Amino acid sequence: MEVIATGCIVAPKGFQAGTTYCGIKTIRDSLDLGIIFSEFPATGAALFTTNQIYAAPVKLSRKVAQKGHIRAFVINSGNANACTGEQGYKDAEEMVRIAGKCLKISEDEILVASTGIIGRPLPMGKIAAGIKAAATSLGNTPTHGNDMARAIMTTDTKQKDIAVRLKINNKDVIVGGITKGAGMIAPNMATMLCFLTTDISMPAPLLHECLRNAVESSFNRITIDGHMSTNDTIAIIANGASGVNIISKGSELQVFQDGLNYVTSYLAKAIVKDGEGATKFIQIDVVGARSRSDATKIARSIADSPLVKTAINGEDPNWGRIVSAAGYAGVELNESTTNLYINDILIFAKGIPTSCDLDKLSTSMKNTDINVRLELGLGDCADTIWTCDLSHEYVTINAEYHTYASVHSSSSHQ
Amino acid sequence: MEVIATGCIVAPKGFQAGTTYCGIKTIRDSLDLGIIFSEFPATGAALFTTNQIYAAPVKLSRKVAQKGHIRAFVINSGNANACTGEQGYKDAEEMVRIAGKCLKISEDEILVASTGIIGRPLPMGKIAAGIKAAATSLGNTPTHGNDMARAIMTTDTKQKDIAVRLKINNKDVIVGGITKGAGMIAPNMATMLCFLTTDISMPAPLLHECLRNAVESSFNRITIDGHMSTNDTIAIIANGASGVNIISKGSELQVFQDGLNYVTSYLAKAIVKDGEGATKFIQIDVVGARSRSDATKIARSIADSPLVKTAINGEDPNWGRIVSAAGYAGVELNESTTNLYINDILIFAKGIPTSCDLDKLSTSMKNTDINVRLELGLGDCADTIWTCDLSHEYVTINAEYHTYASVHSSSSHQ
Repeated sequence: MEVIATGCIVAPKGFQAGTTYCGIKTIRDSLDLGIIFSEFPATGAALFTTNQIYAAPVKLSRKVAQKGHIRAFVINSGNANACTGEQGYKDAEEMVRIAGKCLKISEDEILVASTGIIGRPLPMGKIAAGIKAAATSLGNTPTHGNDMARAIMTTDTKQKDIAVRLKINNKDVIVGGITKGAGMIAPNMATMLCFLTTDISMPAPLLHECLRNAVESSFNRITIDGHMSTNDTIAIIANGASGVNIISKGSELQVFQDGLNYVTSYLAKAIVKDGEGATKFIQIDVVGARSRSDATKIARSIADSPLVKTAINGEDPNWGRIVSAAGYAGVELNESTTNLYINDILIFAKGIPTSCDLDKLSTSMKNTDINVRLELGLGDCADTIWTCDLSHEYVTINAEYHTYASVHSSSSHQ
Repeated sequence: MEVIATGCIVAPKGFQAGTTYCGIKTIRDSLDLGIIFSEFPATGAALFTTNQIYAAPVKLSRKVAQKGHIRAFVINSGNANACTGEQGYKDAEEMVRIAGKCLKISEDEILVASTGIIGRPLPMGKIAAGIKAAATSLGNTPTHGNDMARAIMTTDTKQKDIAVRLKINNKDVIVGGITKGAGMIAPNMATMLCFLTTDISMPAPLLHECLRNAVESSFNRITIDGHMSTNDTIAIIANGASGVNIISKGSELQVFQDGLNYVTSYLAKAIVKDGEGATKFIQIDVVGARSRSDATKIARSIADSPLVKTAINGEDPNWGRIVSAAGYAGVELNESTTNLYINDILIFAKGIPTSCDLDKLSTSMKNTDINVRLELGLGDCADTIWTCDLSHEYVTINAEYHTYASVHSSSSHQ
């Protein structure tokens, strides 16, 4: 597997992207609408938020994804089309209808996604014009790909994209991806979105299984603030333009799965690194658990503790907070078999603090990447969760935002 | 029921308290050890943290509480005696042994509790001298009671105590209580503690049931940061000095239960109001749920969302964050039957935002007390959770604390 230097969402063969600024975002000339298009008929798969309150585009895209054929993604940023009732659903349908006409494909092959402010009707005049403009600007240069990565951003500070080249049956297969998200919900500018393209060919059910596996080991392993969005969407199109066709499990599929996992892991970690106010990337490894589910619960309990997150923000190796967060995860523990390493330094062994090198430990806390490894000594199961710290900047971003700023004109934070 | 103006932990008949500064805390002359003592044999009951990592005093006090006879509490602040291994347990036993000798009662009737830093051995020389000094200073004036409330404080900014007078069988019964806690774990200075005294007489199993009921509607309804401590302890002594004896359920017991509930609710709310960095007291009411457990899950999901907490800190009526936090609580919802009120103003009705008076709503967000009321429209069950906002001050308190400050002398935050 090779990571492509200028890799982007249109790196796989037979894909184009087009973007525009149509006026949904208040910052002029920041791209806010984009289309990703396969030149060939393709299979597709998608996974969505499990939030019981989900947006109109999620509702519509669930139906599209079930049919297994996707040729295009149409995505807007700046407005999530969530909590918008029946009108919101009609607007999502209208977006797909307009895109279908422009792209000359069936609306049943188009997946729609929205991200941004909740509870405001979509400005459909602007969006209709935007879809037409984006469709007109389709192309497959790195610039097209980069613009596409930027068009889905909201409070993200960095563009997040990647492409990898795989060798399957002596042919090149490329997987490309983009993602966005800075809080599970950033300042009302909601959502984690991820779009993937590949020029392999694969039946939709198999593609769905690969996507589920990849998400399980990447996006399902991250948390910024434990707050799940109403709009989360991850989707893939496989158009077969590489000439490689896989119809069943085996070593070829594994090469593709590994490549896809690499792409989704890279993108998931990129979200954590760009988390709201994040100054540290934290990997939490829990090993020696009785079950994977136990390990997951404990790793998430540590990752979501504001006391652990603020301690790491303050570069403090506060093992007491980590151990006690493990203790309330709802999993039976044995203090006397528990070991804790912070940045590979054993600080807590068999239930009591060690006399480790505190200078070395304190210095290591200044690193941007922090590793927490908890050994339970109870079994052979493990899990890993990636998260970030909780900083003053997080509070600033999320406390200074004003929902009704545009009504009261009392704030510029939108 | 009457709230006693200068009410404190020694307001019920036959109770004394004694305190001292023995040098566990680094701030000189801040009280750090206390004893609450019943002059008469008494029944007792206690509830403890459900954290799998629990402190030595919790382990020992669980055994004491099971026997149902408690005549004294001995409590130190400044050191939690948690994650201290076998030596920690021996130290807890030694505390009880010394207290038993000083008070001339069986060590089986003494409940011990500790709060403060995790993972450091107790300074037993200081503590032995402290227990003797506290036992010597026992008395039942309001000053004794107030000093006792202060002796258990760590990062608390306010002393938290109360006493109420009840009429049962034409006799006065008094219930007194003190509590401490500012984070579920404050800057490594752990723990929520609550001690209650009453001069009613009651068999231990009945007293335990009353305590469990009271805790269920008070301390189990609060969250500061969702981080459960290793040392949480709530305990009550009933010494019968009022001459009122209750041996079974009925209207007399209900008067006592109501009084006890009032005391524990008052103390639980006092903890939230004194929460680390708290500027707002938030009551979250979830009604119309299919089950109480559903209502609880949703109320907790909202209360623990850092996005909701920062929005309220910023005085922003951000209903999107509240509704989406309800959506990921793991409970089936119906957007089209959901209503949300913030400070009694209907902002979200049947799945879409209302055109409510935004000026009135924004102004109401400046109140110290904020009410969030979510109507699910699915059933008849409800629950209420009390919490506070997430502020810059919370991050400052918890990020600036340094675990090894005393080793490196690099910080004064202990």
